[in-house]
Amino acid sequence: MAKKPSIPKGTRDFSPQDVAKRNYIMDTIKSSFKLYGFQPIETPSFENSETLMGKYGEEGDRLIFKILNSGDFLKKLDASALSEKDSQHITSHISEKALRYDLTVPFARYVVQHQNELVFPFKRYQMQPVWRADRPQKGRFREFWQCDADVVGSDSLWQEVELVQLYDEVLSKLQLHRCTIKINNRKILSGIAEVIGAEDKLIDFTVALDKLDKIGEEGVKKEMLEKGISESAIEKLQTLFSFKGNTSERLNSLSELLTNSQLGLQGIEEVKFVIDTVQNLGLISSHLELDVTLARGLDYYTGAIFEVSAPERVQMGSIGGGGRYDDLTGIFGLKNMSGVGISFGLDRIYLVLEELQLFPKTVEQNTRVLFINFGNEEAFYAMQAISFLRKHNIAAELYPDVAKMGKQMTYADKREIPFVVLAGGNEIASKTYTLKIMQTGSQESFSLDGLIETVKH
Amino acid sequence: MAKKPSIPKGTRDFSPQDVAKRNYIMDTIKSSFKLYGFQPIETPSFENSETLMGKYGEEGDRLIFKILNSGDFLKKLDASALSEKDSQHITSHISEKALRYDLTVPFARYVVQHQNELVFPFKRYQMQPVWRADRPQKGRFREFWQCDADVVGSDSLWQEVELVQLYDEVLSKLQLHRCTIKINNRKILSGIAEVIGAEDKLIDFTVALDKLDKIGEEGVKKEMLEKGISESAIEKLQTLFSFKGNTSERLNSLSELLTNSQLGLQGIEEVKFVIDTVQNLGLISSHLELDVTLARGLDYYTGAIFEVSAPERVQMGSIGGGGRYDDLTGIFGLKNMSGVGISFGLDRIYLVLEELQLFPKTVEQNTRVLFINFGNEEAFYAMQAISFLRKHNIAAELYPDVAKMGKQMTYADKREIPFVVLAGGNEIASKTYTLKIMQTGSQESFSLDGLIETVKH
Repeated sequence: MAKKPSIPKGTRDFSPQDVAKRNYIMDTIKSSFKLYGFQPIETPSFENSETLMGKYGEEGDRLIFKILNSGDFLKKLDASALSEKDSQHITSHISEKALRYDLTVPFARYVVQHQNELVFPFKRYQMQPVWRADRPQKGRFREFWQCDADVVGSDSLWQEVELVQLYDEVLSKLQLHRCTIKINNRKILSGIAEVIGAEDKLIDFTVALDKLDKIGEEGVKKEMLEKGISESAIEKLQTLFSFKGNTSERLNSLSELLTNSQLGLQGIEEVKFVIDTVQNLGLISSHLELDVTLARGLDYYTGAIFEVSAPERVQMGSIGGGGRYDDLTGIFGLKNMSGVGISFGLDRIYLVLEELQLFPKTVEQNTRVLFINFGNEEAFYAMQAISFLRKHNIAAELYPDVAKMGKQMTYADKREIPFVVLAGGNEIASKTYTLKIMQTGSQESFSLDGLIETVKH
Repeated sequence: MAKKPSIPKGTRDFSPQDVAKRNYIMDTIKSSFKLYGFQPIETPSFENSETLMGKYGEEGDRLIFKILNSGDFLKKLDASALSEKDSQHITSHISEKALRYDLTVPFARYVVQHQNELVFPFKRYQMQPVWRADRPQKGRFREFWQCDADVVGSDSLWQEVELVQLYDEVLSKLQLHRCTIKINNRKILSGIAEVIGAEDKLIDFTVALDKLDKIGEEGVKKEMLEKGISESAIEKLQTLFSFKGNTSERLNSLSELLTNSQLGLQGIEEVKFVIDTVQNLGLISSHLELDVTLARGLDYYTGAIFEVSAPERVQMGSIGGGGRYDDLTGIFGLKNMSGVGISFGLDRIYLVLEELQLFPKTVEQNTRVLFINFGNEEAFYAMQAISFLRKHNIAAELYPDVAKMGKQMTYADKREIPFVVLAGGNEIASKTYTLKIMQTGSQESFSLDGLIETVKH
């Protein structure tokens, strides 16, 4: 096997530096989740296929990674099924398990399965990898991490308020200031579709509207026409295309448009409560904004819809999103459980922090002291000090081999270890340690206590 | 879908309590790994099949979970292959990826793939789930976590010394005192096989010897005979069956037995160095012991072999193991890279800590303060205090709904939240908060600052 090994496309190896930076983001998110009363759960990497299949639409089903049954998986399969080579049909016979596609469906499954052990409203967070057989591209991977916080069992709008605050808290802690948190409400979209008489085309209508940023007013209108939405209906939408003013003014024009839709007006009320309350409580660094073109997750969201954009100076899609789904657990037979949640896109946040150079310098926890190895006797002397340093929570290591001095120093240098200790016969005799500060090159002799004091800071 | 959902056999959901306890163990291991100079890496959950297949023996190949190719996976498959229904043959045509089976092979692959970016000796740790299609049983799962620390690129025995110390450090931090760390050396086993003239039967011989604890001297002898090891050879092993005395005495009798095997004597030298040095440096709470029947991982270990047993009062197999493999990366074409490492069995350590009630009471990080929801005005007043508490790093939450008082108190009770704040009209008027201490039932009125001071402790 002379061929250099590789990893599957769309997956990644994470170096020590990568892991440190990713943990910095995840730890920040995690500590905020906890402050807000969310508790961690974890679910298996693979679920029974029936748990996942059919929950993400046809496209989703295709993108789910299926696991081949163990053993002689073809044994029970009838020969004629095989000869037809119908991959889709055969899949269900040779695969019973699949890798999770997101954290929401496993969460719904968890809630239903454990409903008798849980205290509702149940606030959970979950940070685990998910897998999708998507075409890999920049910022899109086949294995990636989701960081979700959801509440299930309450339809209180205070949750929406708190989730906006939570976004703001995390982003501010990451020094990612001036992010925009966009909010919309499915009921507003339904109301619009209702008043323009395109209720049966809600999805087509919102998918087109969602592209306003990308393809502009004319593009959206063209797509709507193509989808069979009438010219007169589109005309009524002019308010949306020329949406101006501050949030309160926008909500007023929306109210006028939706005056005949009870559902639409309810959506406006909900958004208004969240925006007003958040503004009265205040945000640290983010900006909350009504965006009626926001239509993500329309297959399942029934109330609030959230999306977070990185600061304007960075070119990056959304770095988070979420919303309310009135019947989260209905797919598994537990009715009337409203859920609301948000998700952080770890990989994209990583790219943004990298681009803006916002990772703290101290993020990598590295060895602080390397002890040069001059031979077994010296190494034993060094190991006594190393044990002592470690007891004082200072990461230290002995260069394992009696290699040339230059090689050992190069190791310290490349590993960016700030302190090197040289202890040979003289030091052993005088019970001292010679410390070299790598940055300055200066050397000084210390007792063990002095050594600890010096390398601590 | 009225059927209650479930998860695949051998997998687990982890509740908030489970996650907290597991994180306690993993964080303890992780912090010790860092103190010893190990750096974290992470590798993808699935690897190319060719990376994994053939690395764990025939049995291992069977236990590897294979991932079905996406799309029309049968398309290119030749019809005659299908009609023969040869599952094993077909697997390689419909599956190109597989879930990782351990962390060692992916680590070897990582080292070879990234050899030009790494500084050797490379000390890495890795804590990730692995998957095996094993028959599930108590303490054995299809998805479980490995916590590994390995050094590659040095054959210094100081690594073995440090790895024993590392075991001792982690176990002691977990309050898991009096664990036994067993050490052996592949060269000793090879030496024994050599001097009894059973070199060609090394594996059979050690597999049998490994069972001494379980099936006793007679059982082992019987199995050896069955495997074709001669009676006269077995007779020479009497030393091992009646192995007595302290470590130094045992090493002496071994030396006599192995006096004609250069390899065997080298193994004794190595073990002696590790045991002597560790004893001179001292262990915190564990006990290091020579065990010549220890033969785990003989397919790959070439030098030291480690295994850790839980304290004697617990019935549990090994909670960790490891060893040295002289040619770790050879399977991927990079020769002469010696590696040595240890692994912690998270699931078993968990069971042991549970049984011995060694999880600290503070392990679950929970919400400290719940604010009762009396209505929107009161909730807004509460939310101002909640934001303030969170700024002071105190986990607080508002009960989201205006539910009956009893229901809200029950929630606090079941969630084991220690403090509840009641703030209604009177409190708003006097800018105070009424705090109820759940354990005692006592209530007292505080300013916001007083509230923080009280709930902090």
